[in-house]
Parts: sequence; structure tokens; C-alpha cells
Amino acid sequence: MSLLVVGSIAYDDIETPTEKRENLLGGSAPLFSYAAGYFGPVQMVGVVGADWLPEHTEMLRKQNVDTSGIEVVPDGKTFRWHGRYHENMNDRDTLETQLNVLGNFQPKLPENFRRAQFVFIANGTPSVGLATLDQIQGADLVVADTMNFWIELTRPELDALIKRIDGLILNDSEAKMLTGESNIITASRKILTQGPKFVIVKKGEHGAIFVSEYEMYVVPAYPMEKVVDPTGAGDSFAGALMGYIASQQGNLDGDTIKNALVYGTIVASFLLEGFSLDRLKEIGRADIEERREAFRMMTAF
Amino acid sequence: MSLLVVGSIAYDDIETPTEKRENLLGGSAPLFSYAAGYFGPVQMVGVVGADWLPEHTEMLRKQNVDTSGIEVVPDGKTFRWHGRYHENMNDRDTLETQLNVLGNFQPKLPENFRRAQFVFIANGTPSVGLATLDQIQGADLVVADTMNFWIELTRPELDALIKRIDGLILNDSEAKMLTGESNIITASRKILTQGPKFVIVKKGEHGAIFVSEYEMYVVPAYPMEKVVDPTGAGDSFAGALMGYIASQQGNLDGDTIKNALVYGTIVASFLLEGFSLDRLKEIGRADIEERREAFRMMTAF
Repeated sequence: MSLLVVGSIAYDDIETPTEKRENLLGGSAPLFSYAAGYFGPVQMVGVVGADWLPEHTEMLRKQNVDTSGIEVVPDGKTFRWHGRYHENMNDRDTLETQLNVLGNFQPKLPENFRRAQFVFIANGTPSVGLATLDQIQGADLVVADTMNFWIELTRPELDALIKRIDGLILNDSEAKMLTGESNIITASRKILTQGPKFVIVKKGEHGAIFVSEYEMYVVPAYPMEKVVDPTGAGDSFAGALMGYIASQQGNLDGDTIKNALVYGTIVASFLLEGFSLDRLKEIGRADIEERREAFRMMTAF
Repeated sequence: MSLLVVGSIAYDDIETPTEKRENLLGGSAPLFSYAAGYFGPVQMVGVVGADWLPEHTEMLRKQNVDTSGIEVVPDGKTFRWHGRYHENMNDRDTLETQLNVLGNFQPKLPENFRRAQFVFIANGTPSVGLATLDQIQGADLVVADTMNFWIELTRPELDALIKRIDGLILNDSEAKMLTGESNIITASRKILTQGPKFVIVKKGEHGAIFVSEYEMYVVPAYPMEKVVDPTGAGDSFAGALMGYIASQQGNLDGDTIKNALVYGTIVASFLLEGFSLDRLKEIGRADIEERREAFRMMTAF
């Protein structure tokens, strides 16, 4: 199995109601990759500037991530995002975005990345996703994430991307924005008519739902009393989900899909317990399995 | 086993974005009782006026409900509620409330109701709940529902009631209103300090969660593409939940609790498919079991 991800790489400044942290490793590609790395090897594609810290390359390598697809622009600066979360830890304001090297990013996949069986287009401009797919030959499964920003600003490119993927992951408000439908199942079915074989709607603290033409699977969120930082929870959910599917040779039977949703849920629940990858760096696959079993005890009937 | 419920009995006028229906059988007691009746006998306590239709007594009797605790006030009128749902089918406006005979309701339990093993104080003024408990001897399990109205208007009586019950069922916004805590697990733990051994928080289309000192159980909602009328979904959820627990002799082990949450979820999902009890009247226990199994396939991992 080989799993490739293309997405943003960022340094984030994050403010929560109780804390402020600067220069955190962020972006959809590293968070996805770290989460997927628990389940098998990952090929990561993205762009950084001269400020990129070698320790972050090292950290990703140790987590099963092939970093040879990270392009370093020597006279550039890494994408930066500065956000502040509201009291509810759900809504947030973007205080500053510096696109920097991400603004002109043209993905160039290393030769050995081009035959990836499993491809994830993480959150980023849809044109980068399209340019990535142009370089991929014969993938078994292509899944993409998206967000409100691209639905509003680059709709034609997003529609073109949606036509070329097998699965779309998005959150509930984005599903409504994309389709104009307020019911997320109706919205998902509408997205299926555009090409994808399945849609996964993330509902944050309320779990996630998988919808295909003939199947529906539901997973509640892992109940949490305290969230430290929600940044990247969706990326880590997708990373564990895709990592698990890749580890099962892309088998998409019901049990694999449900377990993929559950592993996404569990890894995201750990991510929420710290800033950036702080909490994930402390845990291993055994911790994931232990919480998965606790979750099963909470839900199995 | 014997399960007793006390609550409101109403005739409702209900408007949804697409339909308007008048004189529907409503109120917390009949909806709870009908749902509980799938699992065993129910003793129902409430008050009605001269406008009460005998066909409704008959319908409840056929569903395992002992109606001898329904007090008829010959010169009175049954409680009436007129509400209108918003486009989202979640929020609603109360257009008119006529308390009528409910305003002076003093529950008087028939002698054979007073040794009920399982007691449910359905939505209604907390003083009615307290007066009911004063007439009950040696119940095994007492559970109550509440709503925003009583939290705001009759807080001292509600607090007195909460002290005397084993379990409280309420929705997420009510849990926050009652405790001032925005996280529903933290809110539930705060309620546990007031006396109840468990709290069940209903999250509507997002499912429900059970919290006790050492346990937590989670159930997602049954996914629904179309809701016809949400009125009484919470009452039917509680009815099936309590009916199932009573049918298991009040055993409160994890499997019983999870199955109770699931039966509540499934029966409520049927209720949502029609006005009043329209849809429940069409289905039997086999339909409930069939949907329960479909739900298990959607969620079991």
C-alpha cells in the first residue's frame, strides 16, 4: 500500500480563551500525515520556506512519513496562519493569513510518488489538488477534503476536483453551503450525483456520517470534557481514516469503513487534547487501541 | 414490573413549514405511554377535560396502557398547545398555551398505582412531580424529564424534585441552562452532585449521552432525511427507554442502558415520521426490531 497526501504546511499562531501559542507546526498535510503514520507509510507533498525547521522533517520521518515531497523554497517563507478561538472552542476568527510560498505552490511529485494507490487531497486550493491528480497514474482511491473558503472563492475549480475524486470529506456547514440543502443526508446525496462514490460529513463534537448510494454509517464523537486546541482535528480525522483504509488494502466493505471512521474519531480526540501535534507525539498505536476499546464499550449494543 | 408515568395530556395544533394540523393528541404522558407500551404495561396519570375523546382512551388501552389514572374534569377543557416549527424543524414558537384543567392539576394516584416499581415524571410542573412522589412507596427507579420552562419559572420546585430522583433526562440546551456549564459532560457531572445517579442528555438530531459517576454511554441519532413533526420525540424517547428498562426488571448494567438508549432512539425516529402518534400507530415491535438491527449495522464496529 502507498498513501500520498498533498496539502498545506503551516506555522500557526493560535489563541484560545486561556492560552496563546506561537510558531506551531500546522497545515493540513503534516497533521494528516502524522495521524496516518500510525497505520503505515505516508508520502507527503507540500511547500515550505527557508524558515522550515529540520526538526519537523525529522519528527515526520520518525512517524512513517516520506518527506522527499516537501519542496523548500530557499528565499521564501512558510505559510502562516494566526487564529483565535471563541469561548465555545468551535468558532474561530482568522486574525492573519500570510500565504507566502503557498501562494505560488505548484506541486511536483517525486517519481516514486506518482503511482500511489491511495491519494488524499487535503485542505488547500483546489487547483493544487487538480495539478496533483494530473501527475498520478492509476490510483485505487482518491479522497479530498475541502472547506468554506474554497466553496466560496474557487467554486469552478472545486467542482472540477469533485468530479475526479472517489470520496469527499467535509463538515456539516460546508455540506450545506456546497449544496444549499439543510439536511446533511440530502446534501450528501446531492454531492454523490457530482461524481464521488461516497461523502463523509464531519459534525465536530457530534461525530461523523458516511453516505454512499446504498450505505450509511454513523459514528458519534468520542465524548470530551476539555478541548485544548481544535486546530487540525479534521485533518487528523482524515489522516487516521485514510491510513486505516490503506492498511486494509483499500477494501471498502462496511466493517472497514466503520473502523476507519472510528480510528479517525479516536486519533482526532487525542489531537484535541493538546496544541499542534503535542498530544499525538506522546501516544502510540497502543493508546489508540485502548481508547478505541473504551469507545466500543460506550457505544456497542 | 410496573411502570408509572405522570405528565401532561394535551390537544395540540401544530404548524410545520409545509403543513398545519389541529386537535392532535399530544402531551408528555400519552406520547411517553404509547412508546413504553411496546415493551410492557404502563400506568398513566394525568388530567383531561370534557372534550377528551374516548377513542384516545381506547387507543392507549390497546397499547398496554392502564388509563384508570386519567382524571376527567367534567366542566373543564383539556390543556391545549399551539406551536409553529421553523424551517429547520428544530426551533419552534409557541403561538398559544391554554392550561385549562392542567392549571389546577393535583395528581391522585389510584391505590394500585402507588407501589409502581418504575416511575417517570414526564414533562410538567415540578410540583406535580413532587405530589406524585409523595404518593409512591418504595419505587426501584424514579426518573424525570424537564424543560427550559420549569428551569426558568419554578427553579426551587425543580431543585427539590431533582433531589428525589435517580435519573434526569433533559436536552443539551437545558443542561447548559440548568448548570451554567457549556460542556454537556461537565454539566451532567454537576447535576449528579444534586442527587441523581445518572443524567441522560438528549441532543436531538445528534443523539444522546448517558453520564453516571463511573460510566458514560453514547448513542448517535438514527439518521433521518425527512422529519414530519418533532413534537413529543423526547417523550417517546423516554417512554421506550423506560419501558425497556422496566422490561429488564430495572437492571441498570451497561448493556441494558445502551439498549434502552437505542430503543429510545429508534422509537423516536418513527415518531418523527408523522404527526402525533400517526406513525407509531402503524408500527409494531417487529418494525422497531428491524430498524434497531439496521441501526446496529450502521454503527457497530
